[in-house]
Amino acid sequence: MNRSQFSLLVMCLTLFLTGISTHKASAQAACYAAWNATTAYTAGQTASYSKTVEERDIQLFAAMSGDHNPVHLDPEFAAQTMFKERIAHGMFSGALISAAVACELPGPGTIYIGQTMSFQKPVKIGDTLTVRLEILEKLPKFRVRIATRVFNQRDELVVDGEAEILAPRKQQTVTLPTLPAITIG
Amino acid sequence: MNRSQFSLLVMCLTLFLTGISTHKASAQAACYAAWNATTAYTAGQTASYSKTVEERDIQLFAAMSGDHNPVHLDPEFAAQTMFKERIAHGMFSGALISAAVACELPGPGTIYIGQTMSFQKPVKIGDTLTVRLEILEKLPKFRVRIATRVFNQRDELVVDGEAEILAPRKQQTVTLPTLPAITIG
Repeated sequence: MNRSQFSLLVMCLTLFLTGISTHKASAQAACYAAWNATTAYTAGQTASYSKTVEERDIQLFAAMSGDHNPVHLDPEFAAQTMFKERIAHGMFSGALISAAVACELPGPGTIYIGQTMSFQKPVKIGDTLTVRLEILEKLPKFRVRIATRVFNQRDELVVDGEAEILAPRKQQTVTLPTLPAITIG
Repeated sequence: MNRSQFSLLVMCLTLFLTGISTHKASAQAACYAAWNATTAYTAGQTASYSKTVEERDIQLFAAMSGDHNPVHLDPEFAAQTMFKERIAHGMFSGALISAAVACELPGPGTIYIGQTMSFQKPVKIGDTLTVRLEILEKLPKFRVRIATRVFNQRDELVVDGEAEILAPRKQQTVTLPTLPAITIG
């Protein structure tokens, strides 16, 4: 057994024994190597992924999706709505859920099969969202059901839901490309 | 009845009689005034929203979500995967679904309650996606169930699913803010 195999064994054993894997992911993303699906996934295993919603995120989401609704972009308009201030696009939380699954648990190599989302509370600019993942069930053929719940900084549930994914069949170590600089305005 | 009321009546009648409302939305978005929920929504009513997936969209999604996985960003890495080339983030289709609901049917003022998505096929850069919406059921208290199916340019279903939304209670005419210029690289 070489050094990297030993390190992997220690990591897998730690994961198995504690059933918990928690990382804080910055806006710059933190994708890690995926674990071997046959040994590392157990029901109850958890991970999390956090991000503060910035003005910039709302503008990028609007540009990428084409949804320029003023409740997301215009402070004066939003002040007249039931929300009293601008809110993030609901599917912004969906994007964070997908990043959590793709970067944290199971991580790189995961294939998305399905996602349910139930939007519980609005998300405001400046809120810090934490996606909490928990493996609910291992299904045949590497399919895994994962609870995907999003909380704000007051620990209020803003999005409830579940993902179904196809876990990577073997460990993957990926190098994360650096994005070109994005300038707004 | 003044001229604008008459125009609205004609539009509503047209919508009611044909049961069909179809718009092509550009990448610059096309949000229209919302219809009065009590008169204009009927089961079977449809709308659509189209967008071609550009390199730029993948980079904006990666920056906004934090998911820099190389299967989305690195052509050489992606060539070695089962997909053979880079694919869009799965939730990119989710962002288009949310834009379709927020911009087309019901349109501005809609509140998202829930979304299910079943990912059927990968989406490649250059694919033209069309979100097809169809009202399935009107529920009590302005809640509406909408089929949200995404097709590629070969008319293959790439994402199946349903949205549940709270329809606007009264007609809304919104002015769409112009986004500041976004420069990549």
